[in-house]
Amino acid sequence: MPVPIYNTITVIGLGLIGSSVIRAAQSQGLAKQITAYDRDQAVRDCAKRIGLGDRVTDTLEEAVADADLVLMAVPVGAMASVAEAIAPALKQGAVIADTGSTKTSVIRDVAPHLPDHCQFLPSHPIAGTEYSGPEAGFATLFKDRYWIIIPDGVDDEAVSAFCQFLEGMGAIVEAMSAEYHDRVLAITSHLPHLIAYTIVGTAFDFEQQIRNDVIRFSASGFRDFTRIAASDPVMWRDVFINNADAVLEMLGRFNEDLTYLQRAIRWKEADKLEDLFSRTRDIRAKIKDIGQLD
Amino acid sequence: MPVPIYNTITVIGLGLIGSSVIRAAQSQGLAKQITAYDRDQAVRDCAKRIGLGDRVTDTLEEAVADADLVLMAVPVGAMASVAEAIAPALKQGAVIADTGSTKTSVIRDVAPHLPDHCQFLPSHPIAGTEYSGPEAGFATLFKDRYWIIIPDGVDDEAVSAFCQFLEGMGAIVEAMSAEYHDRVLAITSHLPHLIAYTIVGTAFDFEQQIRNDVIRFSASGFRDFTRIAASDPVMWRDVFINNADAVLEMLGRFNEDLTYLQRAIRWKEADKLEDLFSRTRDIRAKIKDIGQLD
Repeated sequence: MPVPIYNTITVIGLGLIGSSVIRAAQSQGLAKQITAYDRDQAVRDCAKRIGLGDRVTDTLEEAVADADLVLMAVPVGAMASVAEAIAPALKQGAVIADTGSTKTSVIRDVAPHLPDHCQFLPSHPIAGTEYSGPEAGFATLFKDRYWIIIPDGVDDEAVSAFCQFLEGMGAIVEAMSAEYHDRVLAITSHLPHLIAYTIVGTAFDFEQQIRNDVIRFSASGFRDFTRIAASDPVMWRDVFINNADAVLEMLGRFNEDLTYLQRAIRWKEADKLEDLFSRTRDIRAKIKDIGQLD
Repeated sequence: MPVPIYNTITVIGLGLIGSSVIRAAQSQGLAKQITAYDRDQAVRDCAKRIGLGDRVTDTLEEAVADADLVLMAVPVGAMASVAEAIAPALKQGAVIADTGSTKTSVIRDVAPHLPDHCQFLPSHPIAGTEYSGPEAGFATLFKDRYWIIIPDGVDDEAVSAFCQFLEGMGAIVEAMSAEYHDRVLAITSHLPHLIAYTIVGTAFDFEQQIRNDVIRFSASGFRDFTRIAASDPVMWRDVFINNADAVLEMLGRFNEDLTYLQRAIRWKEADKLEDLFSRTRDIRAKIKDIGQLD
């Protein structure tokens, strides 16, 4: 077993990500004590029942009072209020991290609330499933997956400990700026989710007969979109609101490209279609080559 | 073993679908003799090497001369020329079927070429993978998957035999009109492929750094689109050209819905986003309920 990286960690928000962090930290012995908190009583009860962490507290203040690492795993729209609530209770030298899918907005929302005797280390695990809630988590969710950190202004010792913690869960740590993160994630994650939600919604708005047949014949392509369109609605609502500029920029590019193809279909320009369809083919092979295909 | 449904069947086009039909028919004993043909010499050589069918012929005429069932498993843009080429060699009472992803265009292109002593039974298996070619096929590809037939004007005996053949491969047979097929497939299959090709292309056109990171961080959503964007380029070029009207109609609806969401993001209308994202969630559960999730 690895040496514990932290004496005490606290995870706030016991959804898919938060509960997976706790399971991974428990199974790898990465902290001497793990405290869990969720604002939802039913989630706290569930966490106790399934043994998430060493203790589940009923208040945020109690949850963070002893923590060396506080990990906020809540929707990005809730980060500001969590930061504000925990600030008075944070102990000297605590590191506060988050798992939000947008980084400039979280830094804007969280940093002003935290006391000077703590450090904020924004981060984002590139891992997930279409399932939500404390029972959806599992210890290997982060194994061989990237976990992005934004270490600007955080001291080396704190960054190093956090990296060891993430690597202890099996993650590959990658540092970058918040702005670059938000731009890359807008194209790899936010736009694909928006498109998937849209097309599933478009299908949903047909009359009953077609809607049923969309489900029956989904193996023909539609099914691939339904997985990510089943993701947590509140989490994703907050992502789009909080990374609006980058998402709108990517959406602009996507719309140009789609309009180009639409015109090629209308004018039966077969060469333009075949040219694109041939180029896109090898991207999947590259994803497989670097071990990011399940 | 089931009784053979046909004495002799001929499969033209030995890609994923054609080779899977042969493997399924072989493994289930659905025909006494299976003849295979592909216009590509290298594919014919491969078919011989891996034992696809009882014989592989070098000409279309020879391939179909004895066939009770001829299955055209070629891109929809190639159906007309195949039908024209085989017409003089078809035997009395032969049934000609196809596996094309568009049906009104295939009927328009094929029916005029066939002699009166044969019957044309258009069909479309709702099954596939992102792989192509004779070695990509497998005997269970159609198991528990829908196979749509357009039986208008074909006599009951011929339809019944073909249904037994399809059911022998494990498929669930569903009859409908060509127009309805093209409309439903435009939304379940053609539009999702177009969208996936577009977004993968959009990502591909970034500068090298972002393109690499799109691949590295693809687990965040993008990856789900790369599977169908790796599908056969010629097959899909032909689909869009030959189902242009229905695809453009669905694309119009999709664009309206996407513009609505784009506007909601720009104006930070969180409720509109959450409302849609909540509605789309249960479609995947329904796909699972009817057994169409792998």
